[in-house]
Amino acid sequence: MIHFDSDYMEGAHPKVMQRLLETNLEQTPGYGKDSYCEQAKTLIRKACGNDTLDIHFLVGGTQANTIVIDALLNHHEGVLAAETAHINVHESGAIESCGHKVLQLPSHAGKVDAGEVQEFITKFYEDETYEHMVAPGMLYISYPTEYGTLYTREELSRLHQICRNANIPLYIDGARLGYGLASNASDITISMLPALCDIFYIGGTKVGAMFGECIVANNGLLKHFFPLIKQHGALMAKGRLLGIQFSTLFTDGLYMNIAKHAIEMAMIIKNGFISNGYSPFIDSPTNQQFFTLPNALIDYLSSFATFEIWGNKGEHETTVRFVTSWATQKEHVELLIGKLNSYSNR
Amino acid sequence: MIHFDSDYMEGAHPKVMQRLLETNLEQTPGYGKDSYCEQAKTLIRKACGNDTLDIHFLVGGTQANTIVIDALLNHHEGVLAAETAHINVHESGAIESCGHKVLQLPSHAGKVDAGEVQEFITKFYEDETYEHMVAPGMLYISYPTEYGTLYTREELSRLHQICRNANIPLYIDGARLGYGLASNASDITISMLPALCDIFYIGGTKVGAMFGECIVANNGLLKHFFPLIKQHGALMAKGRLLGIQFSTLFTDGLYMNIAKHAIEMAMIIKNGFISNGYSPFIDSPTNQQFFTLPNALIDYLSSFATFEIWGNKGEHETTVRFVTSWATQKEHVELLIGKLNSYSNR
Amino acid sequence: MIHFDSDYMEGAHPKVMQRLLETNLEQTPGYGKDSYCEQAKTLIRKACGNDTLDIHFLVGGTQANTIVIDALLNHHEGVLAAETAHINVHESGAIESCGHKVLQLPSHAGKVDAGEVQEFITKFYEDETYEHMVAPGMLYISYPTEYGTLYTREELSRLHQICRNANIPLYIDGARLGYGLASNASDITISMLPALCDIFYIGGTKVGAMFGECIVANNGLLKHFFPLIKQHGALMAKGRLLGIQFSTLFTDGLYMNIAKHAIEMAMIIKNGFISNGYSPFIDSPTNQQFFTLPNALIDYLSSFATFEIWGNKGEHETTVRFVTSWATQKEHVELLIGKLNSYSNR
Amino acid sequence: MIHFDSDYMEGAHPKVMQRLLETNLEQTPGYGKDSYCEQAKTLIRKACGNDTLDIHFLVGGTQANTIVIDALLNHHEGVLAAETAHINVHESGAIESCGHKVLQLPSHAGKVDAGEVQEFITKFYEDETYEHMVAPGMLYISYPTEYGTLYTREELSRLHQICRNANIPLYIDGARLGYGLASNASDITISMLPALCDIFYIGGTKVGAMFGECIVANNGLLKHFFPLIKQHGALMAKGRLLGIQFSTLFTDGLYMNIAKHAIEMAMIIKNGFISNGYSPFIDSPTNQQFFTLPNALIDYLSSFATFEIWGNKGEHETTVRFVTSWATQKEHVELLIGKLNSYSNR
Repeated sequence: MIHFDSDYMEGAHPKVMQRLLETNLEQTPGYGKDSYCEQAKTLIRKACGNDTLDIHFLVGGTQANTIVIDALLNHHEGVLAAETAHINVHESGAIESCGHKVLQLPSHAGKVDAGEVQEFITKFYEDETYEHMVAPGMLYISYPTEYGTLYTREELSRLHQICRNANIPLYIDGARLGYGLASNASDITISMLPALCDIFYIGGTKVGAMFGECIVANNGLLKHFFPLIKQHGALMAKGRLLGIQFSTLFTDGLYMNIAKHAIEMAMIIKNGFISNGYSPFIDSPTNQQFFTLPNALIDYLSSFATFEIWGNKGEHETTVRFVTSWATQKEHVELLIGKLNSYSNR
Repeated sequence: MIHFDSDYMEGAHPKVMQRLLETNLEQTPGYGKDSYCEQAKTLIRKACGNDTLDIHFLVGGTQANTIVIDALLNHHEGVLAAETAHINVHESGAIESCGHKVLQLPSHAGKVDAGEVQEFITKFYEDETYEHMVAPGMLYISYPTEYGTLYTREELSRLHQICRNANIPLYIDGARLGYGLASNASDITISMLPALCDIFYIGGTKVGAMFGECIVANNGLLKHFFPLIKQHGALMAKGRLLGIQFSTLFTDGLYMNIAKHAIEMAMIIKNGFISNGYSPFIDSPTNQQFFTLPNALIDYLSSFATFEIWGNKGEHETTVRFVTSWATQKEHVELLIGKLNSYSNR
Repeated sequence: MIHFDSDYMEGAHPKVMQRLLETNLEQTPGYGKDSYCEQAKTLIRKACGNDTLDIHFLVGGTQANTIVIDALLNHHEGVLAAETAHINVHESGAIESCGHKVLQLPSHAGKVDAGEVQEFITKFYEDETYEHMVAPGMLYISYPTEYGTLYTREELSRLHQICRNANIPLYIDGARLGYGLASNASDITISMLPALCDIFYIGGTKVGAMFGECIVANNGLLKHFFPLIKQHGALMAKGRLLGIQFSTLFTDGLYMNIAKHAIEMAMIIKNGFISNGYSPFIDSPTNQQFFTLPNALIDYLSSFATFEIWGNKGEHETTVRFVTSWATQKEHVELLIGKLNSYSNR
Repeated sequence: MIHFDSDYMEGAHPKVMQRLLETNLEQTPGYGKDSYCEQAKTLIRKACGNDTLDIHFLVGGTQANTIVIDALLNHHEGVLAAETAHINVHESGAIESCGHKVLQLPSHAGKVDAGEVQEFITKFYEDETYEHMVAPGMLYISYPTEYGTLYTREELSRLHQICRNANIPLYIDGARLGYGLASNASDITISMLPALCDIFYIGGTKVGAMFGECIVANNGLLKHFFPLIKQHGALMAKGRLLGIQFSTLFTDGLYMNIAKHAIEMAMIIKNGFISNGYSPFIDSPTNQQFFTLPNALIDYLSSFATFEIWGNKGEHETTVRFVTSWATQKEHVELLIGKLNSYSNR
């Protein structure tokens, strides 16, 4: 069996494991007050081209989203997000459990439309009863989105401008940030992000780390964030584990290099299906590939590979998702496409 | 100026005021442990034809919705409701502030569709990732809805059956319950409600009381509700104020009688507009009447009457709402329609 | 039977009832946007000698405490209060339900000690682990306290100075404010309060209103308070009810006049017990009187009067509380003390 | 420099690291649905002598406390705990952020007294106003306590009986469980715990794991716990990391063996100070040792060792804490005591 279910099926990149092993018996102070965290922050500030950035390390993505959103919203505010956003669908109500509504916008292959964001905000304040309604207090987007799609630099700029005009922060969920930046379709780099939004996180769990996400905020945005992390039960006693991992990922371009590998593997899959006559369900340039396939083909592929059924099963055809990662082996991808080619040529 | 803005523009029905005055200097124990509350509960249990009902009095509608929903949902559950539901739109995020998501269903003139409710629940449990999602934990509907429409007895039965099958309670927001029950289009009575749902509230604020809502729950549904009321800051020190008002409203059929008056007034308005060639925006059989009117007519009517602009103003036409209540004077309604007739006959 | 259980056993002062009756059928906009609320605000600003004060009307005391504290605290902050404070003991965890800890200080007959407040704050920031602890975010006191005692002007000034130095607001729960200000032992007036604290509320429910509390805040302290009121289910549809009541109470000195009556009645009780040889359990100069009495005397008094057992019943003696109010009848007080005199002279 | 600051200064026990390395590139399903988690659960159920136990893995201690307490309490309930309890002092208000009060009991060297627990519960329900107060909904204790002390089996039995009588669960915070069970003063084993309480957690972070805590609950106690974990942002994508660590710790008695080492090291420190004439501040039989030492001695020790100042610095003497762990080197302990001996013999 070969596996394309998700990008969190393995442990950590070998270099990350090696550093964890090398430092294992060193003694450091707890709660992220160690030199490895400092080192990682320095490396990330450098990669982002801004040495004033406020950086915090957390364990997981839902945790990062919840704490950031809890930190930034006022009581009467909610977070604008696509209806397909992870925070709206797959976090078991984490945002609401902190008291805040997800204000749903239409999803366009996982993306929000700047015009619709602006329209929501404009209509909100035009409504005479707006003080009885949940105010738009920030905008959440993901890069890449839950459907593997990417915003262009121009789109991000426009969203950010709308947010600035409305005096609300723009937050980018970067659970798969590396796989977005490494895509051939991306026209941005990590160093552009601090100017394109107010706060984002660099996903580690899915991109080479054993676990860990790195929140990067413009200076002054987050207040009293340390006790809030603790209050959410998200403060690691051995904080250095996060520092060690992120400093490794941001040394010698490791983060981007391993992300590029995942993209190359994804493109082999994508092109393989296309060349066999299947059109993508969504045209994703990143590490998640969605195809609507005949159920017979799905049955055949399932005999030697695992992947995810996306949504409900159809009568004749069903949409499926193939995911690659830093750990995906080229032989597995070639095996998949080889068998697909044979199947088509029966 | 004559006013049709809302059904909470006056104080209380004179009989309610009179009883408040008569009892004003009596001394009673606090927090609803007085004989007036007991008396009101007895009268309401009698009207509902069920002497085991659990009854609690609260001050306002958002308060009632929030506390009931907070009481009934488990951490991981949300409340199903039409996207137009008051709890989803006009309660400043009160439900979310208690940690719960409003799971939005399409609105059909303010109503949810039983088939769509069933489909939501079915699909939810078919989804392999459902434990990462907010579970449907109860169903909220309003009677009449925010658009003045009514469910039939058959529709209520079907919704209740779906809820029973899913083992979740059905809750009816009755902020305007009297105006629903008194409508000619209604095929239910208050005594049917305990069998048609699990919990509902009888709106007082809009139907003759100075303030007050009466929660009626099937026995055993609400646990530790008294401290929850207190925790929400909703426990009146002088609880008897609510008992006195509701016992008055449920003596000699006052509640239904004054509701019927509001319906009669609303029908004069409805028929007046229709006979002048305007079609209702929504065909409401209750005390709220919605018409999409030419802006010129709206300007004319605004010269002597107030009413609500519903949604955003259109270029040529705009939807407006006229509301009647127990206190609406027949002369005012006749003046409105008289002037409308003259305007049309210019 | 005569009753001294509490100060919320009757309805409203007759002048308040009269105004509610006179205005009953007037039509006004909802949610406190009416002229009566404006008028009440003007009168209260005048009484407080400051026309920039931010004023909001709410229904009850627990509601007022909860919303004010929820509004003023940051996530990682708690509210300093005496361990006997109403918010710490008798509000069913309302403060915690909003996410905040009550940081308990020793109670000195219901009062906090300025030195102990300062010590708490100083020690907190001296602790190296303070970011793992709940920060003191505001100070709550009551005037009069739950034990009927009063802070002197000097004590209030010192508490306020400590709060200002710590950059946290001082909040005064004035559920019985009138009975504090009207006491002969008080050396402050309502016009001094805006300078002696940052925010306080004027209790109506216990001092002549049917219900209602009036929050008075220094300008700029409360942000987005209207939607927060709504979110807490505390926004009255017929907001004018609160405006009418408070404008009546603040016309022709009614609020203070009726409070003085309660104090006179309380002093008759206090002096009656003292002259019969009983020492007060707490030396209260306000409308609550606490005495530890022999159980036999309690049994005798209970044959014709009701009052509250304070704490647990003792073997030989028990502490009891007698409460007077604007509505207490002089004959009742004289009857109580007359019978006490007879009992003593047996 | 040698370090005795805490028991979380290193990474993981080498055997744990080795297993993480060996399994690093295996592919497993996410969210704890892998075979390593199953294996760990089987081993722990076996160690606890009960194959029906409900087991969940989490990342950290504050997280475990917060989610367990959030899961078990009803809205109107709080958690009984010693005033020195970690949840009351050092979790940044995590419990309150979930809406619940910590009901403080006196601390006796970190322990609660059964008689005082019973008295709290009895008095609570005797109070006529108890429905206005936060109800005792569960009891939290730690084993060992934050002061390194242990409950006897008899004491645990009595606490559990009191809880059963009150129909509330007893929860044991086992952040340092190994160091309690491995103490010579302990008269319990892990297999007794399921009968001595309702739910406990086995601390991994401080006892050999890189990170991780294992919640062990009697069957049926926790409802819908999986989505609650997700909602708290505490669900690891790569759940197998926790399974691998705990299965290693519960193979061949590793958990208890490494805990015994820490106790041996702690006893060398304890006896060293005692033999030099210093009495323990608290007589701890576990891995945390507290001594009140002259400031001059503290200065001397600080020249080559780090340890924690406990509380505020005194004028002449200060209390300090020395902590050992599975990773403490015998040479370091011997160096500490050797230098202490020399210092005393100057």
